[in-house]
Amino acid sequence: MIGLDWGTSSLRAFLLGNHGDILAERGGTDGIMAVSAHSTDPRGDFSRIAQAATGDWLTTYGQLPIIACGMIGSTQGIVEAGYCELPTDLNALGGQLTSVELSIGTMHIVPGLQKTATVTTAPDVIRGEETQLLGLLTAEGNEPNTVVLPGTHTKWVSCEPTRITDFSTSMSGELFGLLSTSSILARLAEPTESFHSEAFDWGLQVGAEDPAALTSYLFTARTWALDGRLRAEEVNDYLSGMIIGAEVTGQLVSTPVSAAPVLVCGAAELTQRYLRALDRAGRPAVAANPRAAATGLFRIAVQSGLVSTKENTHA
Amino acid sequence: MIGLDWGTSSLRAFLLGNHGDILAERGGTDGIMAVSAHSTDPRGDFSRIAQAATGDWLTTYGQLPIIACGMIGSTQGIVEAGYCELPTDLNALGGQLTSVELSIGTMHIVPGLQKTATVTTAPDVIRGEETQLLGLLTAEGNEPNTVVLPGTHTKWVSCEPTRITDFSTSMSGELFGLLSTSSILARLAEPTESFHSEAFDWGLQVGAEDPAALTSYLFTARTWALDGRLRAEEVNDYLSGMIIGAEVTGQLVSTPVSAAPVLVCGAAELTQRYLRALDRAGRPAVAANPRAAATGLFRIAVQSGLVSTKENTHA
Repeated sequence: MIGLDWGTSSLRAFLLGNHGDILAERGGTDGIMAVSAHSTDPRGDFSRIAQAATGDWLTTYGQLPIIACGMIGSTQGIVEAGYCELPTDLNALGGQLTSVELSIGTMHIVPGLQKTATVTTAPDVIRGEETQLLGLLTAEGNEPNTVVLPGTHTKWVSCEPTRITDFSTSMSGELFGLLSTSSILARLAEPTESFHSEAFDWGLQVGAEDPAALTSYLFTARTWALDGRLRAEEVNDYLSGMIIGAEVTGQLVSTPVSAAPVLVCGAAELTQRYLRALDRAGRPAVAANPRAAATGLFRIAVQSGLVSTKENTHA
Repeated sequence: MIGLDWGTSSLRAFLLGNHGDILAERGGTDGIMAVSAHSTDPRGDFSRIAQAATGDWLTTYGQLPIIACGMIGSTQGIVEAGYCELPTDLNALGGQLTSVELSIGTMHIVPGLQKTATVTTAPDVIRGEETQLLGLLTAEGNEPNTVVLPGTHTKWVSCEPTRITDFSTSMSGELFGLLSTSSILARLAEPTESFHSEAFDWGLQVGAEDPAALTSYLFTARTWALDGRLRAEEVNDYLSGMIIGAEVTGQLVSTPVSAAPVLVCGAAELTQRYLRALDRAGRPAVAANPRAAATGLFRIAVQSGLVSTKENTHA
């Protein structure tokens, strides 16, 4: 089968074997933004992108089931694929696919998850992460109660075991991006490729100690740098530490204590930062397979009957 | 006498009478940034700006004492005017002026205030605010223990009565600027001139309730807007409320409870927001004279003997 993790700014295509094993993988920048909102033939444009990403696999293997997750299923994508209301069991996703015809065949799109507003809590939606979560939560040995998906908008998800009960979004990644490139702090910082663990840990401590005072603590990146105690190449790691430290402390207050380690799944370097912050907060945590979306797409294909379990058994 | 509040991006010039009354006032955008860091004659450039702002007053009244405060006394200004270490009594400022010759006469520059770093607290400096504070704290009826100077980098100052014991800087103003113009929240917001008090109060409540979760709450500006409960023209006031609510709650934790009202001194519209936030937090607060810098410059002139008290008595 073919699995597509088709987000806002990127498309990752997987060729999956009969047991969900990744036979081939291809990434690109052709996210849904690659198709103009003013396109006269968006379906044709999306077809051409999918064709370019998977056409040679189809030539080799013949017609294959195609499943996609992510923003391709939003109103800015090819078709609105709906949402499952919380609480929801991820094993139900396969029964709620939305189909659309592309030049390369029928593409089945996974719905997102939706948290309805109450008087006191804000609504929220995720799209793409539900598939990643299914892949993570059905992997052997993973039975977390909390999953963190770090990124521009970091997701904190509560689950038991494949039933999603809550999630919330933190703007920590975007906040770091803005402050490190466009604020007064950027003038004193020298971006580097290397990780300055001491500066990061120092920031963690400051942010975790009193997360309520974050707007004040942020300014200390400037004053310590002017003071000479923070070197220019350390400023960004100190800043990153403060933001992640405050975020983790703030989130853990509303996260049930559990013996199961928190699962962190994201880009390797960012995942390490969250593991360090969780460790400092005394919470066991482990890094998860960053290709969980491929596993999730395969499970959904099995759930929906697009990939037969018989074929699975005998292959 | 002539008083100059000469900051990074603006110069405000005051012609002051024998009792410190403002006879004339002039504002402009000729802050210290108006003189290039590569200028071959920075003193000449600063002289020309001061001449343009005050020359006609000098022509009318003859030579007058000239006192300046603000970033003009930094290394990026005309001369480094030093700092007074905390704790410090503002009545001592007049004894520590730094003089520099301009084409229009001798300009006396007020030192800033400096908080030395300890093992656990970051260093910090202010320059310009010390003069504003002196003006505020020597005004009749003002005996606060806490002064808030809202702006891009809001200052929270502890005092008893003219002795400054502590201050800290909050990046709340810059944070609001970045998020409201450059983040994902900006896409859903429609900037307006009018103040949407309900959206602001809603944001205050959210931010004040759990300031430690600010990075998460920020995202609710997006989800409530997508949900339709927050209108596009309300998004920025909701965001402003969350940031100020979290800031005020976080700061009040370390602010001694006092019967004296908190004094808030800044641009009228922003001052109203802080008064609203402090009121919601149950702390009495009042708005202070936004021209406090002029009063402060006059008091410093008297302290230093540049303006004689005899003249004051007889004028």
